[in-house]
Amino acid sequence: MKRTKGKSHCPINFGLEAFGDPWSLLVIRDIVYFGKRTFTEFSDSDEGVAPSVLTARLAELETNGILNRTPDPGDARRVVYTLTENGLALIPVLLEIANWSAGVDAETDAPPEWIEAVHRDKTAMTELITATVRAGGSIFVGSDSVVAALSASGQN
Amino acid sequence: MKRTKGKSHCPINFGLEAFGDPWSLLVIRDIVYFGKRTFTEFSDSDEGVAPSVLTARLAELETNGILNRTPDPGDARRVVYTLTENGLALIPVLLEIANWSAGVDAETDAPPEWIEAVHRDKTAMTELITATVRAGGSIFVGSDSVVAALSASGQN
Repeated sequence: MKRTKGKSHCPINFGLEAFGDPWSLLVIRDIVYFGKRTFTEFSDSDEGVAPSVLTARLAELETNGILNRTPDPGDARRVVYTLTENGLALIPVLLEIANWSAGVDAETDAPPEWIEAVHRDKTAMTELITATVRAGGSIFVGSDSVVAALSASGQN
Repeated sequence: MKRTKGKSHCPINFGLEAFGDPWSLLVIRDIVYFGKRTFTEFSDSDEGVAPSVLTARLAELETNGILNRTPDPGDARRVVYTLTENGLALIPVLLEIANWSAGVDAETDAPPEWIEAVHRDKTAMTELITATVRAGGSIFVGSDSVVAALSASGQN
């Protein structure tokens, strides 16, 4: 599965080397959509990642400058993962993957009103999601989530 | 590397199951950016895919409704691969991956004027690329390419 690491600066290959492992993108999804931050929370995702694989992917994402690994401010024995600015810049990639699947998968879990909201103004929505995740929120989970903000503003 | 196939309709996981193998995205890149259409042409890409891996990925992409496999009209012994409509719908995913890498990789091969042209009007550029690839052209290669059309119209 190894491609010619570091030799190709084709921008598609470069991106795939940095984050293109499917497990890596699922971790980034967990942070952006669901506000997960810990090893245990990533482990609990539906796709059932093996602990050894998850450990390796988290280390790679940190090495590649996509994740920050810091002690939990509330419990210094615990580590939390957050997206760096380069990690936050992956949000448009996630939105396009979700948009594609929502159009192709008849049984998609993607809420139609969410897909429609992103489609309506992709630039503004990308900015809102990025600011929300940067501040510790997520798209779907919590009182400070993007969907809660949209709902409060009457946009959804 | 196998996730719980077919069980999750999370739109990120669904997309990654359909096209998220890095080799699969490199094949789609070869078609969209460089107009490649045959096994030999895909084999010749810089990343050095093994023939057995390429064979498996092409079959999966066909099964997943992303690639069409048809006899070459000019030489019926030869097979050509083209994108289905669902495959063409992946163009925004590729553009976002390339855009991310161009912003992160100081040595990127992405031409800055191309990244800028996509950024300027992503919707119009996506439509132009999709129409060009659907008609058998590509972004960078050939007299009917997207960059040739932009150049002729004085936009680049």
